[in-house]
Amino acid sequence: MDEQQAHVPHSPRGGGRAAKRAARSARAIASMPYITRRIGCYEVLDEEGLAIIERNADIILAEIGIDYRDDAEALEVWKAAGADVDGERVRCPPGMCRSIIQASAPREFVQHARNPARSVPIGGKHTVFAPSYGSPFIRSLDDGRRYATIEDFRNFVKLAYMASSLHHSGGTICEPVDLPVNKRHFDMVYSHMKYSDKPFMGSVTHPERAQDSVEMARILFGDGFVDPASGKPKTVVINLINANSPMTYDATMLGAAKVYARANQACIVTPFILAGAMSPVTVAGTAAQTLAEAMSGMAFIQLVSPGAPVVLGSFASSISMQSGAPTFGTPEPALVLFAMAALARRLGVPFRSGGALCGSKIPDAQAAYESANTLLPTCLAGVNFVLHTAGWLEGGLSMGYEKFIMDVDQAGMMHTLLAGIDLSENGQAMDALREVGPGKHFLGCAHTQANFETAFYRSSIADNNSVEQWEAEGSRDMTQRANAVWKKQLAEYQPPPLDPAVDEALLDYVNRRKASFPDSKF
Amino acid sequence: MDEQQAHVPHSPRGGGRAAKRAARSARAIASMPYITRRIGCYEVLDEEGLAIIERNADIILAEIGIDYRDDAEALEVWKAAGADVDGERVRCPPGMCRSIIQASAPREFVQHARNPARSVPIGGKHTVFAPSYGSPFIRSLDDGRRYATIEDFRNFVKLAYMASSLHHSGGTICEPVDLPVNKRHFDMVYSHMKYSDKPFMGSVTHPERAQDSVEMARILFGDGFVDPASGKPKTVVINLINANSPMTYDATMLGAAKVYARANQACIVTPFILAGAMSPVTVAGTAAQTLAEAMSGMAFIQLVSPGAPVVLGSFASSISMQSGAPTFGTPEPALVLFAMAALARRLGVPFRSGGALCGSKIPDAQAAYESANTLLPTCLAGVNFVLHTAGWLEGGLSMGYEKFIMDVDQAGMMHTLLAGIDLSENGQAMDALREVGPGKHFLGCAHTQANFETAFYRSSIADNNSVEQWEAEGSRDMTQRANAVWKKQLAEYQPPPLDPAVDEALLDYVNRRKASFPDSKF
Repeated sequence: MDEQQAHVPHSPRGGGRAAKRAARSARAIASMPYITRRIGCYEVLDEEGLAIIERNADIILAEIGIDYRDDAEALEVWKAAGADVDGERVRCPPGMCRSIIQASAPREFVQHARNPARSVPIGGKHTVFAPSYGSPFIRSLDDGRRYATIEDFRNFVKLAYMASSLHHSGGTICEPVDLPVNKRHFDMVYSHMKYSDKPFMGSVTHPERAQDSVEMARILFGDGFVDPASGKPKTVVINLINANSPMTYDATMLGAAKVYARANQACIVTPFILAGAMSPVTVAGTAAQTLAEAMSGMAFIQLVSPGAPVVLGSFASSISMQSGAPTFGTPEPALVLFAMAALARRLGVPFRSGGALCGSKIPDAQAAYESANTLLPTCLAGVNFVLHTAGWLEGGLSMGYEKFIMDVDQAGMMHTLLAGIDLSENGQAMDALREVGPGKHFLGCAHTQANFETAFYRSSIADNNSVEQWEAEGSRDMTQRANAVWKKQLAEYQPPPLDPAVDEALLDYVNRRKASFPDSKF
Repeated sequence: MDEQQAHVPHSPRGGGRAAKRAARSARAIASMPYITRRIGCYEVLDEEGLAIIERNADIILAEIGIDYRDDAEALEVWKAAGADVDGERVRCPPGMCRSIIQASAPREFVQHARNPARSVPIGGKHTVFAPSYGSPFIRSLDDGRRYATIEDFRNFVKLAYMASSLHHSGGTICEPVDLPVNKRHFDMVYSHMKYSDKPFMGSVTHPERAQDSVEMARILFGDGFVDPASGKPKTVVINLINANSPMTYDATMLGAAKVYARANQACIVTPFILAGAMSPVTVAGTAAQTLAEAMSGMAFIQLVSPGAPVVLGSFASSISMQSGAPTFGTPEPALVLFAMAALARRLGVPFRSGGALCGSKIPDAQAAYESANTLLPTCLAGVNFVLHTAGWLEGGLSMGYEKFIMDVDQAGMMHTLLAGIDLSENGQAMDALREVGPGKHFLGCAHTQANFETAFYRSSIADNNSVEQWEAEGSRDMTQRANAVWKKQLAEYQPPPLDPAVDEALLDYVNRRKASFPDSKF
């Protein structure tokens, strides 16, 4: 973190009773703006194993190559850098991509939020949790499964804003399919800016939409958009640039990446891989391919705009070899995740992966086992930017209201886990042991009383009451309890303050742009 | 593992068609007899942190002391060893317990099963999964929650026998409350011997019941009970000796421990701690107390019977500071678990902890999140003996039929995780990458075809089909699918062969003993 003001809590403006109410409200949703881990990262491979994967990635880049499709400029960039460009195939000698990345990509950077207290460092020992991304459907206990709308999108922005364990507003939390495809990015980006003050993601579905995202960020941040020290824009948007695995980048993603990189905005370069279909059926093969693809994309961005923030992304799951269906929360993706996190650290770039992924259609035990089996490795591996932390169902096809609340609770637990073991005098608690002694209980001792409030993580939706009390309260399962929580939160939502002039300027930009071209389904 | 025959698969006896059927049946339930981990253990504390916990444990043992209640012999044993015995309070100078343990306790030992192919090594890089232990209630979709019976007990022995990911038959899988308290151990131990050929646990609720367990094992193993090399009994029963935390051992557990230790049977010495009630509200305090209590108990056993196998056990969860109810699957117990595993390694004894613990009453998302948040740390920490791997509900008050099937599936996944990343030529899959290349898919390539069968872990109860297919099949959640599985398994159960003469001798012992004293509720 290069800026101490990111740690200063936001002070609500104004005075009197309203200010006190606002201050209380701000406290109520006060949260750690991000996690700084105090425990080590789990390493699944030793030095020799990691070197094998790196060597294989270099072989892929040098001998097999990566296709850069329908983007003549990209091929020119690679030629100028000295790559072997054969048609759309780009081959780089061993070490070339790594050198390019290490020469200019930042090891760690700050994504600024409009509320400086919510700016987040991406990289190093930091972990940032963002909601799920990209589902065309939503699922709730009330509606079952249906297409998502812009109202759902706004609801999830509000819920993410109120979630103390989420540090980021995310991007396409769900697809607002009630809006034209070529204009919905305006409403999504505006919703992040209006209904939350956490950092957010821009549009990547067309270079023009990326440009719109940058222009809207310029309006939102006003005079603060450009860093006076460097004269460059501050990094205020982070964006998901997926490779078309295997070993292919397409013009849409390359176009968006170039727009963002040239504006000094961050790109998460993510091979999206279902192993067995888009990569070999083995963990080591999938890791080598992921590393090769990600290095190629990140090196390309550094060639386009040296120093632009990049994040090594890995989204790797496997498919059922019986049905071909994608599977989540199984052990192989956890192994890929542990390996890729270590490879990103060795390369010296921030790492994105994991989340609360699952294949289950509903927020049942399958969803929870699979999500926990993804989120815990995510945290132990040392992932820096965690997309899909909350809401994911059905392999990403559905965004679940109840699942969101349940995952937010799990993300809260991860804060405690990553804080590690308190070895202070108070943490060692020898006074408590001396006071209580054999055969007594610790409930009333001075140390317990002093640490009562903060002793253990308190889940908002776990039920630990007796079976009798639980039955008396209706024998509700966790999903039913989560259903009540999201409704209560939406009912209580209060927007963060936004300068009316800025709001007006944003709406003016959006309305002008929307009017300047016809609606389209593409 | 000191015995290679433990790796030899069991050969069914007899010839002809029946033998082929038996062989097929044996293959169907063929399993890895135990896990040997190929990935490292996660370390949450560094050398300095672990040394602090060890120092504090020594302070507890030296300055506070441990109570040995209602057992004059135990106090004599401690006095003879040079401890400071004040009434029932036993204080040992720093390092004394550690020295006693390290002088004679085995770092690793084999628990023999009646089927030698199912013998398990306890300690080192090995992990053994056993079912849950001790629930008075069962829960199923059919019956809801009700008291457990001996029929339930037999059912779970059969299900554990058929579960390829469980290596052990466990002990008091559920309490057969339809039988007299003072005689139910006969039926439990006999059920393990009769309906399974996996290793099992003995009774600990009274020294006489421990002796009965040893005598029945002597009958079951016959000539094989005594190791001809050492002249001592082989270790064929493992037993759960819980401390009465804080810092107390009672006569019942001490009595059982002495019986087992003198017969060279294994004792898992486990402080059972709900932090905040039986220990301080901090992780470091709970770990120091656990280490002190466990070291005291293990040292006592070594004094009674030098060389008798002991396992350092840790059962630590926390309580809700609002309601006092026990909670499971929260982050603090995971931190205790990681720390205790490292402390056991440093001490040089096998380690027992973890499982699939949860507070939820039913096998819903809460149960699954909490169970996964316990089982994954269990495996990454390097636990050697995992009690409560399958079935646990409601803080251990209920044993769930559906939960059992779901947890067994998770335990299967852990086999894959702990096998780590295959870095062979086939694992690296460079041929596949070269064959397929950019923009194609891997489904049909030679490498995928060659690895099709074993590529990814296949869950028996996860549903990864399309939402349309899932709906067509009844929109069942994981619990409903698990319900069908346990019923099918019980219907298909075939007992492992048992010499009729041995069976008769066991029943004779049981019947004689049962007739020799009246039923009792205690």
